[in-house]
Order: sequence, then structure tokens, then C-alpha cells
Amino acid sequence: MLISLSLLGFGNVGRGVAQVLLEKKEWFRRKYGLEFRVVSISDSSATIWDESGIDLMEALEVKKTFGSLSYWGDEYSIYHLSPIDVARKVESDVFIDVTPANPEAYKWYMEAFRMGRHVVTSNKPPLVFHYVELIQEAAMRGVNYRFEATVMAGTPIITLLQESLLGDEVDSIEGVFNGTTTFILSEMEKGLTFDEALKKAQALGIAEANPDVDIKGFDAAYKATILHNVAFEPMSFKKVEIRGIDDVSPEDIKRAKAQGNVIRLVAKIEKKRVSVEPVEIPKTSPLAVYGTSNVAVIKSDLMGEIVLRGAGAGVKETASAVVSDIIKCVKRE
Amino acid sequence: MLISLSLLGFGNVGRGVAQVLLEKKEWFRRKYGLEFRVVSISDSSATIWDESGIDLMEALEVKKTFGSLSYWGDEYSIYHLSPIDVARKVESDVFIDVTPANPEAYKWYMEAFRMGRHVVTSNKPPLVFHYVELIQEAAMRGVNYRFEATVMAGTPIITLLQESLLGDEVDSIEGVFNGTTTFILSEMEKGLTFDEALKKAQALGIAEANPDVDIKGFDAAYKATILHNVAFEPMSFKKVEIRGIDDVSPEDIKRAKAQGNVIRLVAKIEKKRVSVEPVEIPKTSPLAVYGTSNVAVIKSDLMGEIVLRGAGAGVKETASAVVSDIIKCVKRE
Repeated sequence: MLISLSLLGFGNVGRGVAQVLLEKKEWFRRKYGLEFRVVSISDSSATIWDESGIDLMEALEVKKTFGSLSYWGDEYSIYHLSPIDVARKVESDVFIDVTPANPEAYKWYMEAFRMGRHVVTSNKPPLVFHYVELIQEAAMRGVNYRFEATVMAGTPIITLLQESLLGDEVDSIEGVFNGTTTFILSEMEKGLTFDEALKKAQALGIAEANPDVDIKGFDAAYKATILHNVAFEPMSFKKVEIRGIDDVSPEDIKRAKAQGNVIRLVAKIEKKRVSVEPVEIPKTSPLAVYGTSNVAVIKSDLMGEIVLRGAGAGVKETASAVVSDIIKCVKRE
Repeated sequence: MLISLSLLGFGNVGRGVAQVLLEKKEWFRRKYGLEFRVVSISDSSATIWDESGIDLMEALEVKKTFGSLSYWGDEYSIYHLSPIDVARKVESDVFIDVTPANPEAYKWYMEAFRMGRHVVTSNKPPLVFHYVELIQEAAMRGVNYRFEATVMAGTPIITLLQESLLGDEVDSIEGVFNGTTTFILSEMEKGLTFDEALKKAQALGIAEANPDVDIKGFDAAYKATILHNVAFEPMSFKKVEIRGIDDVSPEDIKRAKAQGNVIRLVAKIEKKRVSVEPVEIPKTSPLAVYGTSNVAVIKSDLMGEIVLRGAGAGVKETASAVVSDIIKCVKRE
């Protein structure tokens, strides 16, 4: 089966997805009988659009060499389309949005749904602020809206909540969903101050130049809200209680360490209540993760406690989620 | 939507399933719009069969009071049907088999599939010895064959492998899938000999009177084979390399302990190669589980390592898997 894809966003994740589609082409055909044809790629400069399919190897090389798709005019036509126009005009089975966080993106998805396209995305704000409209529109149009990449990268927490434990009532989900804060807190355990640890994270490209989204807890709060919406019901982001790690002191860390504990930015999700805050936890707790590992501890009435741990970031790991979602959209058709 | 169920097996798990169906009746209706009607219940003595639905509370009481459904003749007709006759004659949407391990059960499922019924089961041997026939027949008849309960009780390892990581190639799965051996090895860590630990496990009802299936590694090997069949391709059980824990000595345990290690019965699943054996692992390894916790460590090309940990036994926990599977069978219809 030939599946046409429209790829919006050609940064790290977008290129990661292209790389996987390219490298595993034969495997997808053998395992699922699926052949993917990328019919458009958009970066912030331009959209390459060709219904007969774009050469992904070339696209990756052009992007690498020139930094922008707009220089690729010799082989493909260059278009300047808004994302909503891509959703409307580019004939595709799956509309893939891996652009940076953007609440407006929900309009693109609504348009894609109206055109009968599945949407696969790593973009969190639409799920946080427009969950109901999106889910309803997708259902009404008989298409899929998939977003495994938004929480814990390819570690399948969304699929687990959607497709398993169907007879269980979830009591709570606790987790560590932000690797940048884990990195900073781990460095502080080694003796750095918060500012030194943050600078190190920025130097390594782990924290952004403007690190507020991570260290003030908004990234974790977005993810926690998405999990709340999936596991329970839609809730307003305004009600989420958020405290970041920026007021965690070396003394806090030292005191925790003396008790055999660590501090992590823990999200707690219960029905109608979501909080994100630095919590002192025993080193032996499943929440005591390191590096880019994320973890979710799900408590439910029949099963008790289930722990799911895996990468929460990374290009390949995020591409894993996006590609799995693409296959999930079309496998059952 | 009204869903009729045929329940084969009314031991601990069968009664656990009935209990969940009874207690969460309203919740299933609210959450999924599903109403379950159990139209037959079979124990080893008899089959109760009533197309208008059986009173589950009464059934549980009769079983508790008299030990057998055959004493229930005053309210329901008592039938003596073979399992294959139940699969054929009892009009149900889902045929649920929670009888003890039995390779012959595959014939019942084939019959159920032919009659257009989904099959949900906790019965391992059919999956180990007849995987291909069963999967093919179910696909041909357009019905589901679901077996989450066979590995790690309700901890959703099967669903995870079937429904997520679709773009990943699994390299290996390592896991601890048998709680009885974990109990015995843990007791040996406290200083008991193997025989003492086994007797304690038997006294507590954790090990069977004939404990060979657990301690010789067959239970873990069955589960590992099922995971191999799901993650890779069907393989012959004869090729599984199995070593149980019966030759683990107090000295082995002591030596491991001195190194900060524990011994666990570890199953390792790679493409075309499955082994089960006692392995010495660091206490900090995700494989170092305790009690009835089971764990699976999945390694794949894009995601690296994913850890899934949760109960691997228990009545509620197994019922969780069975009920989730029932819902999964009918939710999409």
C-alpha cells in the first residue's frame, strides 16, 4: 500500500523521521506492506512539493549543505505555503507536524482532518489547549490524531494508556518527564550550583538559551496535562500547579543526599488535579531516573503499580514515536 | 452495545473476571457504552447456560458455597458440554478460556473462530504450540485472538509489542516472568536452602504441589516463547534452552550477594533464540525484581532500552488482562 506523507518541520526531528523512512524503507515494505512517499517537506524557508515523491536523501543533503530547503530550486519547485495551506492543498494521507511548540497548530490539524488526513505530531500545545475540538473533529472525519512523541519521546506511554488497561480505572500517574531538569539536578548532586549546572546544560545543548520552559516546569506541565487528558478527561492548563527547579538550593540537594535521596521534577496526575514540583525521593524509587530517561508510574485499581521507563528525548527516539504513529494510522485501513 | 460472553473456567481467574464484570458494570457502560452479558459459565463439573444472561453474584455464591456449578440446578439448566461444544453451541461474541494450561485448547479456539467469536485467554500452550494456525484462522474469520494474561498478568507487555514501537526493530527482550522462582531465590538470599524455600513457597500457596513447571523454568520458557512469537516470528518450543533454578546452591546465592548481586531466573529472547536460566545480576539492574513483580527490558534499534515492570501474577491482576482484552475485542466493532 502506498502512503503519502506531508512533512511539516525539517529540524532535528523532521530530519530524523526522514532518515528512518529512508533507511528502513525495505523493512516497512516487508513487515507491513507499506511504501511511504513523502510528497512535501516544509522548513521555515519554503515547501518542497512533488506528488510523485521527494528524494529524501537529496533533501537531507540539501538541508545539511545549505541549511534551508529554499536553495533547492534546481530540482524541485519551491512553494511558499502557510502550514494551513499545506494541510489543505498537499494531497497526503498523513499530515506530520514536527515544528516547534505552537498552539496555533491546532488550526492546521483541523484543516487536515477536514481534508480527511491523519495527523501525527510532536507538538504539545494543541493537545493542552484544544484537546476536545481536535479529538472530536478527528473522530467525526474518521481519521487518526496521534501524538506519542509529545510525552517520553518514543517510550509508548500514550499507546499504553489508550490501548491497554482498558478494564482498569487509573488512580494516578507519577512521572519524571523532563530530562533537562534531571540533568541539572544530577549535576547539582555532584556539587555544582544551580547556575553552574544550567550553564553546563546550555553549553552541552541540553538546555535552551532561554531555559524557562524546562526549568520552570512548563514542559513537564504540558506533558502532564496531555496525560491527564488521555487518562481522565480534558482539564484546563490554568489549574495545573507548577513549581520549577529554579529555587532548589545546593543545601536542599545536600540534605536529600545525606538521606539517600535525590530531588527530581515530579509530575503527579490524578483526576482533575495535576501538579509539577521538585520532590525528594529515595534513590531506590522508580522515579529516581538519570540522564534522558523518563519514567511513568501508573497506579490503577486492578493492576496496582506499573512502571514504564525509557528515553524521554533524542532525535531517533522521537522519530521512533512519529514513525510508529504513522504506521498506526494506516495499518488498519 | 450488548456483548455476550462465554466463560470457560471458574477457578480463581474465572471468578476474578466475573467479579470485575459485576463490580464495574456501571463503569463499563459509562466509559465504553458496553454492557456485558455472561451467557455461559463452565467449571470442571458442568456448564450453566442461559442466553438471557447469568446472575454473576449468584454464580459466585454458588461456587463459593458448594464448590461446583453442578449444584445450581434449581435456577439454571445444567449442561454437560465439552469445551469445543461450548465454543460451537453457546452463542457468544467472546469466548473466554481461563482454564488451566492445556495444549488441546487450540481446538476450542479454532472452533470459536469458525463460529465468528473472539477468543480471550490466559492459556499459554496454544500460543506456544499452535501460534500460526490460530493467528491465521482468527485473521481469516475477522475476529480477535487476545492473550495479554499469558505473560506478566495485566502488565501490558503483549499490547506494547503489538501496538507500539511499530517503526522499531526489536533486538532483544530480557525479563523475569516467573514470580515463584523469584520468591524462592529471595528466600535463599535470606539464608534458606532451596528445599526450605520451596517448602515455604508451597505452604504459602505460591508454588504448586508439583512445582516443576515453575522451578525447572518451563513456565518462563512458555512465556518467553510467546513473546518471541509476537515480537519476531513463530519458533519451535523444542529450540528453547531451559535451565531451572533447582541447581542454584546457597553458595551461589552467597557469592552473588557478596558482589552486590542477586540471582534471578532470566528469560532472554532474540530473533530465533530463546533461553531461560538463572543469571547473576546487579541489585541495581532493572531485572532485579522482588515479590510477584515481573519485568521486561526491551531493546530496539531506535528506542534503545525500554523497561516495563508490574505484577506478574494475582487474581485481580490477571482478570485485569482478561477484561482489557475483552474490551479490546469489541471496542472497535
